[in-house]
Amino acid sequence: MRDSYRDELNATTELIVTVAGLVRTAVQDATTALVTADLTVAERVISGDARIDELTKEIEQRSFQLLARQAPVAGELRTVVAVLRMSYSLDRMGDLAAHIAKIARLRYPEVAAPEPVADQIKQMAETADSMIATAITTLENRDAEAAAGLATADSKMDELRSDQFHLLLSDDWEYGVEKAVDTALLGRYYERIADHAVAMGARTIYIVTGEAPEGENWPSSF
Amino acid sequence: MRDSYRDELNATTELIVTVAGLVRTAVQDATTALVTADLTVAERVISGDARIDELTKEIEQRSFQLLARQAPVAGELRTVVAVLRMSYSLDRMGDLAAHIAKIARLRYPEVAAPEPVADQIKQMAETADSMIATAITTLENRDAEAAAGLATADSKMDELRSDQFHLLLSDDWEYGVEKAVDTALLGRYYERIADHAVAMGARTIYIVTGEAPEGENWPSSF
Repeated sequence: MRDSYRDELNATTELIVTVAGLVRTAVQDATTALVTADLTVAERVISGDARIDELTKEIEQRSFQLLARQAPVAGELRTVVAVLRMSYSLDRMGDLAAHIAKIARLRYPEVAAPEPVADQIKQMAETADSMIATAITTLENRDAEAAAGLATADSKMDELRSDQFHLLLSDDWEYGVEKAVDTALLGRYYERIADHAVAMGARTIYIVTGEAPEGENWPSSF
Repeated sequence: MRDSYRDELNATTELIVTVAGLVRTAVQDATTALVTADLTVAERVISGDARIDELTKEIEQRSFQLLARQAPVAGELRTVVAVLRMSYSLDRMGDLAAHIAKIARLRYPEVAAPEPVADQIKQMAETADSMIATAITTLENRDAEAAAGLATADSKMDELRSDQFHLLLSDDWEYGVEKAVDTALLGRYYERIADHAVAMGARTIYIVTGEAPEGENWPSSF
């Protein structure tokens, strides 16, 4: 019984790592679609979200079955609940990547992000990507210390978003209202992707230490 | 044992209803702060979010204890998992109301939302408010049919958001880039509040029927 529990939990954690990999690709591809106005890549991200939805649903069902069949307690219960919540974050990150790709598609054949915006967007995408990568390795290695670094990485994202507002609200902004609106929403989407990576890190800390991390760098709920 | 389980679950459900009431007030107040440039009300919403955070954490802890002590199965397990997820939605709705209030504060003493935007925002706020109210009563009455109506109400929100984009991307837009950016983000915040109300409804359907509602009107994960 306990062995089957461990096996099932490990398989579910592996599935999270797989889906997180798909999410990384989705965010990278959505960014490419956005800065190069590549319709094919945009469509791939948008249609590919169904696979992420499907797999996060599978993670949910497995967590549910673990709760129903194994009635875990203490650290094991913490892990299953954390897994359940991570599946939600992954689902949302996939949706947000699709939102980014939809802006690319909406403005095609124009490039949605003009030059100075594109530079910032690329940095946002890189920051988000490395945050998701950190969230994956911290989960795989049960590494609460590395997870704690995510809150710091998130400040970098906040800085980029603040720079973005400066750019699009400056007197030099020459790209009009439509591109300003697109940029503001894109910034919000990347910020939220990063927030979910932080939440995944917070959940790993919770699995390892049994305590939710506190402080202004951490989300109030995850 | 089973009686204490029922009691505890009912107390937790009541707490959700209480927090949902606080969220309704927060969204209403944030809207007032926004359309009347009322700094006092904005500050109240922003500082009041700590109370919502605290209570959603309590809901989480109670759900966790129910899982640990009572090892519920079948319908009861579904209910506890749904409660756990609803606490996350309520936390996010509180955050989003605070985001709205922060835009009001940022632009004070100016009114952040110019006249035609304010009219749409008021409608968005009313739609979101009635959706949260529906989510509360459906949870209280375990009414899957009323919950199903939330997906329809959400189309009204989508329509309002689409009208908003029309307005701010029209040639007649005379309020500049800053107000366009604020408006686009505000629209996104109200839309997400409505999405969370839909998700709460989806969870009630899941509690009552044991099946997650499917279709394009429902979120892929909740």
